Amino acid sequence: MESMESCVPPGFRFHPTDEELVGYYLRKKVASQKIDLDVIREIDLYRIEPWDLQERCRIGYEEQNEWYFFSHKDKKYPTGTRTNRATMAGFWKATGRDKAVYERAKLIGMRKTLVFYKGRAPNGQKSDWIMHEYRLESDENGPPQASICYYAY
Amino acid sequence: MESMESCVPPGFRFHPTDEELVGYYLRKKVASQKIDLDVIREIDLYRIEPWDLQERCRIGYEEQNEWYFFSHKDKKYPTGTRTNRATMAGFWKATGRDKAVYERAKLIGMRKTLVFYKGRAPNGQKSDWIMHEYRLESDENGPPQASICYYAY
Repeated sequence: MESMESCVPPGFRFHPTDEELVGYYLRKKVASQKIDLDVIREIDLYRIEPWDLQERCRIGYEEQNEWYFFSHKDKKYPTGTRTNRATMAGFWKATGRDKAVYERAKLIGMRKTLVFYKGRAPNGQKSDWIMHEYRLESDENGPPQASICYYAY
Repeated sequence: MESMESCVPPGFRFHPTDEELVGYYLRKKVASQKIDLDVIREIDLYRIEPWDLQERCRIGYEEQNEWYFFSHKDKKYPTGTRTNRATMAGFWKATGRDKAVYERAKLIGMRKTLVFYKGRAPNGQKSDWIMHEYRLESDENGPPQASICYYAY
């Protein structure tokens, strides 16, 4: 991503807060508005394994242990047996409770935490890959939309 | 620092490496070259206490526990009893060995670590304030020059 390296001065790193991810990046993405700096790539989460995604979402500088991307939420097939959030090698499983994301006092979105299991449910093997999936608060009754996720390993 | 907030997209934080501090910021400062984004303020380290400096070196967004600044190295008075690196409330004392800073394989600078003591040497009371002082490698025999420091509390 040359565009980023030429725009951001040395010493700056992408470490967004939940509020910035939802209130700026995700909101603009869903509204198809221009995002100043194209740091978050769009990928299809269900066609790519965690360990392959690092290369796709690199931001240009050394050592990352978090990778940010947009992915469309998986459509629910009315018929079919495919596990939600499954990849070829495994599947993502939600853990804990969703966390509210606020902008000042206003609820603007939710953050879901998921863990990657290798294999097939219910016999998967838990891994160290963690994903945070953000959605806008308007999600519930709205049309399918993008979410931002990031892996931390 | 409005200039910074309007230039750097949401989510970016200033977390420079030693190499970036010395190879980009300090080198440009010493050469009086323009620095793209004015994020490192110039202060007189010996006229300000650690706890007052935070306000002066804020970079515009919430929660920092590191503050970056340029300061001229203290002149050595041929006569006089003032402790090196003393402020009104205490003094900075070097600790450990200086660390070399490399740009690829080339030595470009050194990093000295200092701890703040309240009171007067040799009876000062050690505090949790740490400073890293960077100098260009050309320092040794050259004229006095700026150094970048940061506090970590």
